[in-house]
Order: sequence, then structure tokens, then C-alpha cells
Amino acid sequence: MDDTGYEISPWQLRWRGLDLEALHATESTFALSNGHIGIRGTFEEGEPRGLPGTYLNGFYEQRPLPYAEAGYGYPEDGQTVVNVTDGSIIRLLVEDEPMDMRYGSAPAHERVLDFRSGTLRRTTEWTSPTGRRVRIHSERLVSFTSRAVAAIHYEVEPLDGDIELVLQSDLLANEHIPARTDDPRVAAALDTPLVSDFAAAHDFRAVLAHHTRASGLRMAAGMDHEVDYPANGRCSIETEEDLARLTVAVDIPQGERLKVTKYLAYGWSARRSTPALRGQVEGALAGALETGWDTLLKRQREYLDAFWETADVEIDGDAELQQAVRFALFHVLQAGARGESRAIPAKGLTGPGYDGHAFWDTESFVLPLLTYTVPDSARDALRWRHSTLDKAKNRAVQLGQAGAVFPWRSINGEECSGYWPAGTAAFHVGADVAAATSRYLAATGDEEFEAECGVELLVETARLWTSLGHHNAQGEFRIDGVTGPDEYTAVADNNVFTNLMAQKNLHDAAAACERRPGLARELGVDDEEAALWRDAAEHMRIPFDDALGVHQQSDAFTHHAEWDFEGTPPEHYPLLLHYPYFDLYRKQVVKQADLVLAMYLRGDAFTDEQKIANFAYYEALTVRDSSLSACVQSVMAAEVGQLQLAYDYLAEAALTDLHDLHANVENGLHIASLAGTWMACVAGFGGMRDHGGNISFAPRIPPQLVNLSFRMTVRGSQIHVDVRAKTATYRLLSGEPVQLAHHGSPFTLDSFPVTRPIPELPIATPVRQPYGRAPVRRG
Amino acid sequence: MDDTGYEISPWQLRWRGLDLEALHATESTFALSNGHIGIRGTFEEGEPRGLPGTYLNGFYEQRPLPYAEAGYGYPEDGQTVVNVTDGSIIRLLVEDEPMDMRYGSAPAHERVLDFRSGTLRRTTEWTSPTGRRVRIHSERLVSFTSRAVAAIHYEVEPLDGDIELVLQSDLLANEHIPARTDDPRVAAALDTPLVSDFAAAHDFRAVLAHHTRASGLRMAAGMDHEVDYPANGRCSIETEEDLARLTVAVDIPQGERLKVTKYLAYGWSARRSTPALRGQVEGALAGALETGWDTLLKRQREYLDAFWETADVEIDGDAELQQAVRFALFHVLQAGARGESRAIPAKGLTGPGYDGHAFWDTESFVLPLLTYTVPDSARDALRWRHSTLDKAKNRAVQLGQAGAVFPWRSINGEECSGYWPAGTAAFHVGADVAAATSRYLAATGDEEFEAECGVELLVETARLWTSLGHHNAQGEFRIDGVTGPDEYTAVADNNVFTNLMAQKNLHDAAAACERRPGLARELGVDDEEAALWRDAAEHMRIPFDDALGVHQQSDAFTHHAEWDFEGTPPEHYPLLLHYPYFDLYRKQVVKQADLVLAMYLRGDAFTDEQKIANFAYYEALTVRDSSLSACVQSVMAAEVGQLQLAYDYLAEAALTDLHDLHANVENGLHIASLAGTWMACVAGFGGMRDHGGNISFAPRIPPQLVNLSFRMTVRGSQIHVDVRAKTATYRLLSGEPVQLAHHGSPFTLDSFPVTRPIPELPIATPVRQPYGRAPVRRG
Repeated sequence: MDDTGYEISPWQLRWRGLDLEALHATESTFALSNGHIGIRGTFEEGEPRGLPGTYLNGFYEQRPLPYAEAGYGYPEDGQTVVNVTDGSIIRLLVEDEPMDMRYGSAPAHERVLDFRSGTLRRTTEWTSPTGRRVRIHSERLVSFTSRAVAAIHYEVEPLDGDIELVLQSDLLANEHIPARTDDPRVAAALDTPLVSDFAAAHDFRAVLAHHTRASGLRMAAGMDHEVDYPANGRCSIETEEDLARLTVAVDIPQGERLKVTKYLAYGWSARRSTPALRGQVEGALAGALETGWDTLLKRQREYLDAFWETADVEIDGDAELQQAVRFALFHVLQAGARGESRAIPAKGLTGPGYDGHAFWDTESFVLPLLTYTVPDSARDALRWRHSTLDKAKNRAVQLGQAGAVFPWRSINGEECSGYWPAGTAAFHVGADVAAATSRYLAATGDEEFEAECGVELLVETARLWTSLGHHNAQGEFRIDGVTGPDEYTAVADNNVFTNLMAQKNLHDAAAACERRPGLARELGVDDEEAALWRDAAEHMRIPFDDALGVHQQSDAFTHHAEWDFEGTPPEHYPLLLHYPYFDLYRKQVVKQADLVLAMYLRGDAFTDEQKIANFAYYEALTVRDSSLSACVQSVMAAEVGQLQLAYDYLAEAALTDLHDLHANVENGLHIASLAGTWMACVAGFGGMRDHGGNISFAPRIPPQLVNLSFRMTVRGSQIHVDVRAKTATYRLLSGEPVQLAHHGSPFTLDSFPVTRPIPELPIATPVRQPYGRAPVRRG
Repeated sequence: MDDTGYEISPWQLRWRGLDLEALHATESTFALSNGHIGIRGTFEEGEPRGLPGTYLNGFYEQRPLPYAEAGYGYPEDGQTVVNVTDGSIIRLLVEDEPMDMRYGSAPAHERVLDFRSGTLRRTTEWTSPTGRRVRIHSERLVSFTSRAVAAIHYEVEPLDGDIELVLQSDLLANEHIPARTDDPRVAAALDTPLVSDFAAAHDFRAVLAHHTRASGLRMAAGMDHEVDYPANGRCSIETEEDLARLTVAVDIPQGERLKVTKYLAYGWSARRSTPALRGQVEGALAGALETGWDTLLKRQREYLDAFWETADVEIDGDAELQQAVRFALFHVLQAGARGESRAIPAKGLTGPGYDGHAFWDTESFVLPLLTYTVPDSARDALRWRHSTLDKAKNRAVQLGQAGAVFPWRSINGEECSGYWPAGTAAFHVGADVAAATSRYLAATGDEEFEAECGVELLVETARLWTSLGHHNAQGEFRIDGVTGPDEYTAVADNNVFTNLMAQKNLHDAAAACERRPGLARELGVDDEEAALWRDAAEHMRIPFDDALGVHQQSDAFTHHAEWDFEGTPPEHYPLLLHYPYFDLYRKQVVKQADLVLAMYLRGDAFTDEQKIANFAYYEALTVRDSSLSACVQSVMAAEVGQLQLAYDYLAEAALTDLHDLHANVENGLHIASLAGTWMACVAGFGGMRDHGGNISFAPRIPPQLVNLSFRMTVRGSQIHVDVRAKTATYRLLSGEPVQLAHHGSPFTLDSFPVTRPIPELPIATPVRQPYGRAPVRRG
């Protein structure tokens, strides 16, 4: 069983053998989700296990946030995603011996996550401690097409003659989870978060309803089964408050199989009653049984076929990267596909990391991908933000500001950050929401969304900036005392990223009000307010160090001492776990792309020379202690002509979870980094930019790759971009002709493919990374 | 009983009548302490009561500090002063009716704190609900001369015929205290902090020994009595774990009195055993009995006579201010007199505020007074700092710095701050310790202290600065990302106060090593290190705004938006309770003198013109949400010729506690503000400065005052300075001649008084305060 690890394959993630140490991590990578329900890749038999988890988007428990010294405006309560009633458990007794791979032996064992079928398959041959042999095959899905439904098809086949089997299919609530934190209060809040409201079972069906102890959210989980077994079998079902169990006791003759299909349904709500949720769940089960396993499978594949048709990225020349990119696309789809009116958390629904909170990652890293591949999901994610606007406006009032202050981290829209310098002070989240809104509107022309949500999002976020900033005596518009993306500098004046994103936000809000004067009036925007926005945008302070010829990430940044990189041993990364914030904040050390992200998202605000100089300067300071960095550095490395570096960073972003580069994939996948993999391909080597809603490309691939191609949807038209060493070919796959540009030259793409040469790469001067922090060189 | 309030009297604080609402506050103002033991001014009968408290310097309970989001280097445990075994209780039953002023009536009731006798006297005539009348007289002291001892003399006199009395004299541990905080964990930790180790009683004596549950400190409290009562009386004593009680039941004939003298003794230690502490306490009681009440009283008065001889400040023309100044001097003496190897907390031993922690207040506000009046107490306070040097060096290592990092707040020397931007980042505390060390050395010439502690304190604090700061490309020495005294701006670059105090620290350390080369070698200081210190000091960055012609409190300060003072209603002060830190930090609003304090303590680093311009600029931004501000503003207002304003601020500082200006005197007195009252008199109207150890004066009094005079001790010589409208007279009271200066002209003061004219006051341009924040105009 030593030969474990992921196998490289273009459309699958396969792991052979049992590695107990890797269980936590593979439960994350093998997690299934549709954005609504998420189930980690645990074994059906329950044990061995890493960190079992079933998550429902938006279903959380509340807990008090403690402070050694409290302060005005600190959030009093936090929210934590709840591991809800687990329906994935199908225990098996083989001749009275519990099937558990830690005992006996498993001569064959593999799991396969299939990106096209959208299922997790598992095949295990197990020899029990007493020597009996069975083969187990399971396949499970969380349905993209029936969002309340998951299903598991489970088969057991005797390999050495007739065999006596007992199968127990469970719904298990308040499953004990090994503690993940030293904080006793967190553990207490999460230990048994669910209070039973209702339990019932008959025939093959059971439903358990619970509510959360403190937050008072209600949920119901149901299971139903199709069992295919010989006539000698006996089947029963029973429930307790926290357990429902179908038991099948049966003798299976050699050559036959025990087959069980387990259908699961979940319903939850802050408002609907337990009977209503029970009804919803039983309805979903009835629908799923009617649909049947084969049709669920078929629809799952059709859904994914359509996805790959519009979203696939093909890489020729690096098979591991090809797999990693599809893995990334698949998981981002899983995180965002059916979130609908709810957030897309930083970990999707793959683990409890970050308490299940959503951050600015969603708008800045995940939505670009969804906007150009599954635009309806991008719209739904923005609708979630819009649905929290009242909370954000209340928060602004509490903080003495106008407009809306979106939370740094949240499940329900209320601020849950317990450390304001890296939370509340990161006001850029509002501009990030606005930028995602503008991007979505430009990419889709969705006027209905613009009218219902878009303009209001732009206006309320713009209002924050004129309230937060002020003009100095020289007439510059300053935004003081805020935190940009780089969490190793906090509460600084005039963070370039924040100021440039605010500038765009202000411009876009003014333009939207010009386009939609009626809506603007309804929102109370008059010409004077729009003029204030334009003026603030025009005079936005962007600090620049003339002596060094580079932008300052924020005022005075370049005057600070440089971090002692040579004196920092590798085991002291991430720095925040080994050095105090005060020292990180006051030195030149960058956790994650900040100015470099500004150069990507607001590339129109920099000259080429500035990009080259800034990239080199900040590259030497950036330690990538965040998974949000490598993908951005890849994009800008490609733009400034550092193709090898771009390739290295693309691989780092793509392999963040598969290689567990941050040593915490057990708590869930890094959805933003996975989305950033797409960004590094499309915006990096593809050179795609969408400044002002205009789509342009400046493609260029590293010599290791033969070919990189990707698909995008722009205003309903699907395009295909195929990049080779010397040329790029653009094809319109469907829809109306689109205006594009190639390395600065505009063209109209219609039914004729357009092939253009790729300009010679200028010689780039080498850049350096902080001591010991260079990315792994690839290829 | 309506006619309550403090009565004005030069040597006493008297309060007539019972005002239940004012009980908490008067328990603080009437507190007695010798710096070792503190007892709040509660009634002997126990109730009514505000916040009873008996505190032992350095005796604390430990509690975990919680964080919503923890960070590297955050202190894990806090310390909280403990209300220990209460020995002040003497309950009385009058004909079976408990004496309690809330019942029956008290036609006469007064308390007097006497600054010359050092006692709290109380006289109450009480009519019980059944109509019986008694007069109670008590007097108590916490001995300055026997530091482990307190005593209460208690008399009851029947006023309407023979009466049956029962007197119960208690030692009471784990007294229930009404909760002061919403945080359930704090309340839990403090609810019953003491665990009983031992209890014994015989005759008139009892001892209770306890230890603290978490911190494990041990203590013993003992009482003994002299009881003078008729032969018919019965007396008994008994103990439980948390209670010892002497009971006296007696019939007192009209014309006679029941007289009880209760002697109290306390011993506590982290190292000594319970039997040893018991022995210490019983020994102290035996000594006190042998000394007797009258002699204790006499020694108390002699100690205070000597204090007033060297420390008195006389004010002619403002009787309330005269009283307040003596009240201030008395309480600062009580806080610092016998602290010896322990800290002087921000509240002294008068209440549980700030958890009983000591801050930079001690060195910067309290020690100037003690240095020039009770220099041995100043030395002992610095010895306490020195005794914590190992902890401060460990903290520096933890924070990645050289030298010593003294805590922002602590009881035992370990950092207890749970909010680093206003705690750990306030590195100036090291320079404050160094400045107090230098001042003490210059004022006393104490070579023994210099050798044992002084040089090491200067060296280890200096080492921090060269590690914390760095040179920029222009050769300036920068100290980035620190917090100065003003807690409404935090984590800023090049705080002028910090940089100037660091500059002095570096210079003084280099000079000390030059004076004491042997010691320097022992401390590992070589010439190169001293050269680094001198270089850093010489090139220290001091930000200045050329356009405005004023110093910047820290880099960029003058570019920030001004706080909206007009839009801030009076009930929104203190701002920190009504506005978020992020908004306070990024705006021009000053909680407390910062640059203005720098102009006082480092007045040698500013020109007169700069002082005038800076004072006006920062005066308009300073809201005085801290009690550490008015006294400093008074000093600098006097220097820049704003005598009325200086007078207003002096009164504000002096009356902070008597008028309860910060509405929190119930938690204890503001010892630093009380010490600042002396500062405002001596350094303000007296114009005393000690730059470089040279004592100079520039006296000038406001027209409301006829005369201000004060006494100081300089290198063992006592001087008297008498300031009138047109002249100042200097007298040497004892000791060697001293070098002084009067308004810039040096002179030698020997046995002949020197009278000098006071230069005409230049016309000062008016300054303004923030809207609604002008001080009360006085006189």
C-alpha cells in the first residue's frame, strides 16, 4: 500500500492505496459539492476518517467573539459553518466483522474523482481479519441539476464464496469531530451544535430535523434507498434523535451482488418551519427516486459536458498541469454552480477552514472565472452580496461612514472578523464587489441585473469612498489608514490597490448613474454627488517613489526597513505564525500580491516601464504566505515578459491543493487559488484583460508548452483562443461577432478564425525573490 | 442630608452627610495607603458600601486573555489585582439593631481625610429605627512607618441612656464584589480568588492565610485588638476559612464609651510559605500592639511633617486649588511611599481600575514628583523596573528585538496588554524608564543605584532603539510603526515623542558607558555599540511640516483629515467608546498630549517659535480623553505664555478626581494626573526644567494667584521657590549651594535668598480647543 499519491490523468483525479496520513487532505480534494450542499470525500464505512464533513451553504452556528480588550464596533458574534447530519455513511459488516481498512488488508483500493461524470468512484477489495474477501464499489454525486439532492450507489460483491453481510445506512447528526483548535469556547460551540426537532422513518426512508443551538437555523436531512438483494434478506429502519439507520442483513451468493442506492436530500432555512423543511426534503427524495440513479448520473454528465464546452482550458506539454487546471475548474464550478442566493466561501463546501466564511476572494478571484464561463453563477454570487446590502449599510452607519461597508469575512453578511487591522480596515472589499459587478455587467449586458442590483451595488460602494477619503491641501484625494490585500502591511495611508480600485468604483458608479438616471434618482444620487465621485477619482493619490522609480504599495512603504530575509529560516514561514504583527507591518515584506494585483486589475493605470520596475521591486519582497499570490504573480510575470516565472507561479497556484503547498488542505481547498489557476492561464499566458469592459489578449506561452487554449463567453458569444509558440488563433464558437484585440491591435472576430503572430519577446531583466522564497522551477 | 460634597480646607478633605450615589467615589478619595497596603474608604460597618477593597501591592490573580483571532506574541495571561481579606470591618448592633445608615437616621455624619495626620476620621451620630441614639467615632491609618500595619481606633458612645451593644470585628476573605464588567470570565476569575490555607484565633487575635487560585501567590492577614469595656462585657473570637470574628457584647452606661483599637497586619509572597507569612503577620501585630495606637498616630504625623517640609506646594489666591494640590501630593505619597520593590500602579492602591496595572505613567508623571521630593521612593520604583529586566529582555527576544521591551501594562513585569496597537507598539515606555533613570541620577547623584541598576537600565533600553529603528537612504534614523502617548494615533512612523525620547535614551546610555567603562564592559557594550547609539541619536528623524510650520506628531499626521469636532456631540466623549479605532487612528484628533509632552520633556529640542506654533496647532486637536493630558497642556501653556489656559488646565488636573471629571473615580484615583498637578505647578507656573540634569526656572503666575511657592530637593539640598506677580525668590533651606537659572540667567543659590524680577509676559495669540472641549475657565 506504499504506492500512494495522485495519478496524472487529463480528466480524473485518482488515488490508489490507503494512506492514513493523507486522509484529511484527500477528503478535501475528493469532496463533492454543487455550491449548495458539500460532502467531503470520506469513506462510506465512516472509519478510518480524517475530518468528516457535510456542509450546507449558509448554515452556520453562532458563537461569541471574545476580546482581551474590547473596542467600539468590534463584532460580538462570529459564525462557524456546521458539520450537519452526515448521510454519506454506509457501514458494512462482513461475516460480523466491521469493514475497516485499518484491519485485515486491502489488496486493491482506489478512489477516482471524475471531472466529466461529476462523481467520486471508489473500488476496494478487502480481506477481513478472518480472511473473507469482498469487493466494494461505490459511486456518489452531489447533483448539479437537483440541487437539494445527493446520491450514493453502493455495491458489495463476495470474492470467495457465499457471504453474510449486514449493511447499515445512516443519517448521523452531531458527529464527534476531533478538535481543530485550542480555544475551548470554539470547541464547545461546535461540539453538538444541532438540537433535534423531529425524527421519523418508514420503509426505506428516514428524515431527521434539527436546529442550531445559538443561531436557531433549521434543517432537515432525509435519506431513501433502493435496495437490490436476494429474497433471504431482511431490512429494517429505525431512528433516534441524532441517528437514523436502515439495516440490511443478507446472504449474498458468490457471483451476485448487494446493491444499494442511497438518495439524500437536505433542506434548511432561517425562516421556514420544521414541517415545511421536512416536506421539502421528502419531496426532493421522491423526485430523486423518480429520477433514479442512472438518470441522475446522466444529467450530471450532461451538465458537465456543457460546462467543459464553455470553460475548458487545454494545455499541451504538461500533463500534470493539464490535470491540475481541470481539477481547479471542476472545484470552482462545484463551489459556485448552485450557490444561488448564498455566498461562495473561501473553501467552497470542502472543509471547515476559515469557519466557512466568504471573503473578497470571491469577487476578485472566483468571479472572473465564473463571469466568463458560467455567468449565471457569477450573477447569483453578486445577488448574494446585494442581499446583504442592508447589513453592509448598517455596518457603515456603525463605523460612521456613508454607503455600504461589506464584511471582511462572513457567512450571513455580518462582519465576523475579530481583528480589525486585517479585517474591517480592509475596505477594498467594497471596491472588489463593485469591480466584479462592473465586470459582470460588461461581460453579459445583463440589464435586468443592472437594474435590480448592479447600480445599487456600484452606488453604495462608491459612497463609502467619498466618506472614507478626503482632499489634502494640495487637492489630492487621500484614503488614509486602510489595509490593502497584503496583510503584512496594515492600516496604511493611500494603498495603491485600494485607491485605484476605489477610483474605478467611483468612475463606474458615476457612469452607471449617467446611464440610468431614473435609478440614480431612486437611490438619492444627484448630479452633485456624482460630481464628487468623479472629482475624487480624478484626484486620487497614487504614491510613487521618484528616487527608486517605483510605486509605493502605500505611503512611505519604500522608506521602511526591508525584512531580514536572509535571517529568516524556512521553518519560520508563514511569517505571521513566527513574528509579531507590529514588526511585519513596519517592514518591507509582502505577504501576497498587492501592488502587483493592482497592476493586473488596473493595468490601465500603469505604464509598461512602471510595470516592469514595480514587478521587479515587489517580487523581491513577496513571500507568498497567502495562496492568493502565486496566480497574480504569474499573470504579471507573463505581462512583463518573465515567462519562466509565470510558468512556475502558474504551477504553484495550480498545485496548491494537490501538493498541499500551504500544509492546510485538510481544512478545505483554496478555491481562490484554484480560480487563480484559470486566471494565470487566461490572463497570464493568454494576456486577457477587460479594462473598461473591452476584451483584449496578449498571448505568449513558455517554451515548455506546445499549446494553450481556452474558451470564454462574452456577451453570449463563445470564443476559443488557441495559443502556440508563434501564433494565436481566435475562433467564434457561437453567437454574435465580438470586438477583441491581439497585442494591442483591435479586430472583429466573426465566423472566420483569426490567426495572428505573437510578437518577439523582449529580453527581460532577471528578477529575484526573497531569500529562499523562489518558486519551484518547472520544466 | 442633602448638603453633601467636599468642603474646602487647606489640610483636610471633609465630606458631611451620607450620599449613597457618591459612595464609590468617596471610597477612592478617602482611601488610605502606604504604597504597600491600600484600604478603600469604606464604612467600618460594611454597608452601605460602594466597591470595598483592600489591596496588597503586587498581589494579583492570573486569568487567560482571550482573543477572537490570536496572533504571535500576544500575552496569554493577564493579571488582576485582588481584593484581599478585608480587615476594615467593625459591625455594630445597637440594641439588636444593625448599625446601617440606610435605616434610622444620621443627624450628623462626616468623614475627614487629614493630610497632616495621615488618617481618615469619621464621626456619625445615628438614631436607630427604634429610636436609640449613639455617636460613633473612628480613626484609621495605614502606617507609613510600619509598612505591614494598619490600625483602626473605634469608639461608640450612647447618647440617650444606657445601651446594649454588640461589636463584631471581622477579617473577611472572598468578599462578594458587585460585577464591574460584562465579561463573564473576568468575573469568574475574581469571584472567589482566594483559597484558604490556614485560620486560627485566640484571645483577641486571628490570622487567616490564603493563596490565589491561579497565580498561586500566598498571603496572610491578621488582626489583634485592644478592647476597653466595662466588666459586664463578654468577648469571644472564632474563625472559619474565610472569616475571623471578634465579638464584644456589652452594656455601655450613658457617659461611658466602648473603645476598640484594631490592629491589622498583612504579609504576602510568591515564595515564602504559609507558616512564614503567618509568623510575619503575627510579628507585625505584636510590634503594633507594643507600639500602641497613640505612638502609631504620632509617627504617622512625624512622617508627614517631614514630607510636607520637603514637598509642600503653597497657593495663595485659590483655596480649592490649594486643597486639591495637597490632596494630590498626599495621594501620590500614599501610592509611592513604601512600594519598595514593587510597582506604583496607575490607580495606586485606591481601586481595582486598570486591573491594578502599572503603566508608563509611573516613570513619566509620578517619578518627577517623587524624584524631587521623596527621592528614595523614586529609587525604589526604578528598582522595581530593574527587577523586571529579565522579563523585559525575554519579551524583546520574543519580539525579535535587542535589549529590553518593558510591558505596556503589568503587575509582575510581564506584558498584560491584550491589544497590541495601543500596548506592545507603545515602545516609548523603555525611553520613559530611561529618562526617569537619568533624572533620578542627575537629581541625586546616587552612584550606588547607578552602578547596581542605572547603567543597565540605560543600556538595555538603548539597545532596543538601534534594533527597532533603521537608517533610510538619506541617512535619517527612522523608528517606524510604533505608538506614541496619543492613543488616537497608533502604529505610525517616526512619532516625534518616541524619537526624541529614544534620542535622549541613546545619548544617556552612551554617556553612562563613558562614565562607567567597567560596567559598560560587563554589559557587553563596546565602543562600536556606543558609536551606533550616538549616530542613531544624531540622525534621528523628526518630521516637520514645512508648509504649516509645525512638527508632525508622526509622519504624515498633518496630511490626515481633521476629526469632525463640530459633528461630535458631548456625550460621544471619550471618543474611543463611540467611534472605531480605525477612524480615530487615521484622523487628526489627539487623545492626550503627545507632541506637547515631547515639547516639555525634550524642550531642548524645539525653538521657542516652534513651541508656540506647535502648541497652537495641537491644542486645536486635543480632546483630553485621557487624564494624562491636562497637566502637560498646563505646563506648555505656561511656557508659551497662555497663563489663563495653564491655570484652567492646572485646575482640571488637580480636580480630576475630586470633581470626578472622567466619571470613573470609583475605580480608583488617577495617580498620574495627581502627580501632574505638581508638575503643572512646578514645571508650569514654576517653569522648572531639568534638561541635561541642570535645574532651571522660568516662573510666572496668573493674575488670579497672589503667590505660588514650592519646595524641592536637589542633590540633597532643599530649596524653596516663592513666586509672586513680579518677582520670584529662591531660598536654600538646607544643604550645599546649588546651581540654578531664572528665566535663562544662571545663578548660584547659597544661604542668601535670591530675588529676581519676572520678565514681562509677551502677548500671546489666542489658541482654540476642539469644539466643545475647552477647559472650564477658572477664576
